[in-house]
Amino acid sequence: MRKVAILGMGLIGGSVGIDLKKRGFASEVIGVGRSQANIDRALELGLADKMLSKEEAIRSADIIILAVPVNILVNELKYVLDTMHPDAIVTDMGSTKSKMVESVKNHPLRKRYVASHPMAGTEFSGPNAAFSGLFDNKVAIICDKQNSDSDALASIEEMYQILGMKLLYMDAISHDLHAAYVSHVSHITSFVLGATVLEKEKSEKAILTMAGGGFESTVRLAKSSPEMWSQIFEQNGENIVEVLNTYIDKITIFRDKIKEGDYEYLKNFMIAANDIKRILK
Amino acid sequence: MRKVAILGMGLIGGSVGIDLKKRGFASEVIGVGRSQANIDRALELGLADKMLSKEEAIRSADIIILAVPVNILVNELKYVLDTMHPDAIVTDMGSTKSKMVESVKNHPLRKRYVASHPMAGTEFSGPNAAFSGLFDNKVAIICDKQNSDSDALASIEEMYQILGMKLLYMDAISHDLHAAYVSHVSHITSFVLGATVLEKEKSEKAILTMAGGGFESTVRLAKSSPEMWSQIFEQNGENIVEVLNTYIDKITIFRDKIKEGDYEYLKNFMIAANDIKRILK
Repeated sequence: MRKVAILGMGLIGGSVGIDLKKRGFASEVIGVGRSQANIDRALELGLADKMLSKEEAIRSADIIILAVPVNILVNELKYVLDTMHPDAIVTDMGSTKSKMVESVKNHPLRKRYVASHPMAGTEFSGPNAAFSGLFDNKVAIICDKQNSDSDALASIEEMYQILGMKLLYMDAISHDLHAAYVSHVSHITSFVLGATVLEKEKSEKAILTMAGGGFESTVRLAKSSPEMWSQIFEQNGENIVEVLNTYIDKITIFRDKIKEGDYEYLKNFMIAANDIKRILK
Repeated sequence: MRKVAILGMGLIGGSVGIDLKKRGFASEVIGVGRSQANIDRALELGLADKMLSKEEAIRSADIIILAVPVNILVNELKYVLDTMHPDAIVTDMGSTKSKMVESVKNHPLRKRYVASHPMAGTEFSGPNAAFSGLFDNKVAIICDKQNSDSDALASIEEMYQILGMKLLYMDAISHDLHAAYVSHVSHITSFVLGATVLEKEKSEKAILTMAGGGFESTVRLAKSSPEMWSQIFEQNGENIVEVLNTYIDKITIFRDKIKEGDYEYLKNFMIAANDIKRILK
């Protein structure tokens, strides 16, 4: 049985804490919070067995999980590697991976680190958003596994399997490109759609009384945390700009074809896009 | 008790048929289908009590509901008004309204027509997609109600209430503008996102293995019918182009701010977009 320390008791860290304890992966879950309010709330909600200072938590744990915002992940990872027992294992759950693996490539304990990204979440954040089952049947990505010790890798794989996740492996650079396509840009299209409609609402008060199911699902992600997402855009800007270039080209053509009345073009465009059914249920 | 004829036994017409019968609004539901296969399937699924030819159905009904594709709605509405008993009532369920009300403004039976739009649907279509409860707790819009006889209006209001819908009233021109914002453009952003990712998949085979919940909800509408949507774009092109102009401006600025590294701007943009929480649960 393992002592697991989790830095960050928000949606991700808190949900990990609940299920690693409940499902028997951790003998003890030690939480680390950034504010006293979050620490109190995490204990009340049972997200961790106890809360310790960052240093105490790291020194006493067999596995350390970083579930903090991506803008501080690089510094926190270095701190953990410098502080933890040399046999301990550290993983992070950030949405971008290239900067992470790059930042520790020369660290003497690099092989105790497993770069990972559980692809799960909701549009909510903080300890109150955490719940059991968040990760069930979702995908966890492990990056550059050849750069981790095999026992460290095996422990993190076991952890994600106990969280109910399917494992995928890729290099960190591919991860960031793919994440830009299938996650980061979805958030931008939602934020922009929300902003477009809200702007019109200033002159057309009733506009949102009509918002139905289709609008709700496409705009849901516009409720996401601006703090967290501006950090992700900062870390993965180059890939995101590449995807947005393609997206903007396509939507501009779409608009122009509506203007020109070229409905055959539009129909064929949509028939091709329907192919997304192949992937999604 | 009323005899109700439904032209079009797809997702919308079929779901209306099931619930108007089940909930006692209609003594008899008479269906009209375009192909023998659809007619057979509608009877098998119990979407209507019987299927008749278009003319017979219209002549024998107290209320006629048009649930056919928007590109033929204008012609069908004229045909119904020319054919039906002068005391009968007709409504349509199309996603655009200005062309409809314009097309019949001088018809002697104009006041027997109630222009409406039940804002409900899924990404699926055809009789197999129909189900009881599709309309529950959704919004139905009635346009230009002052141009309908009060008994006709009252019957259609009662029908939508029995289908479980909240009623909203507006003029047809506002409807089409609002629908462009909260429905039509959501579909375009989904189609374009789907197309963007599918194009990348040609060179990056694994990309869609990573597609998680956020991507799925923003891209769900890309599974919608190209036939139906190209017709809606044709009918409401001017409004849709107006919305797309704003949307493209905003997403272009968003991309440029990522390029420039202006994360404060982006954070404020997203904080403003978060205001969508006010409207959506």
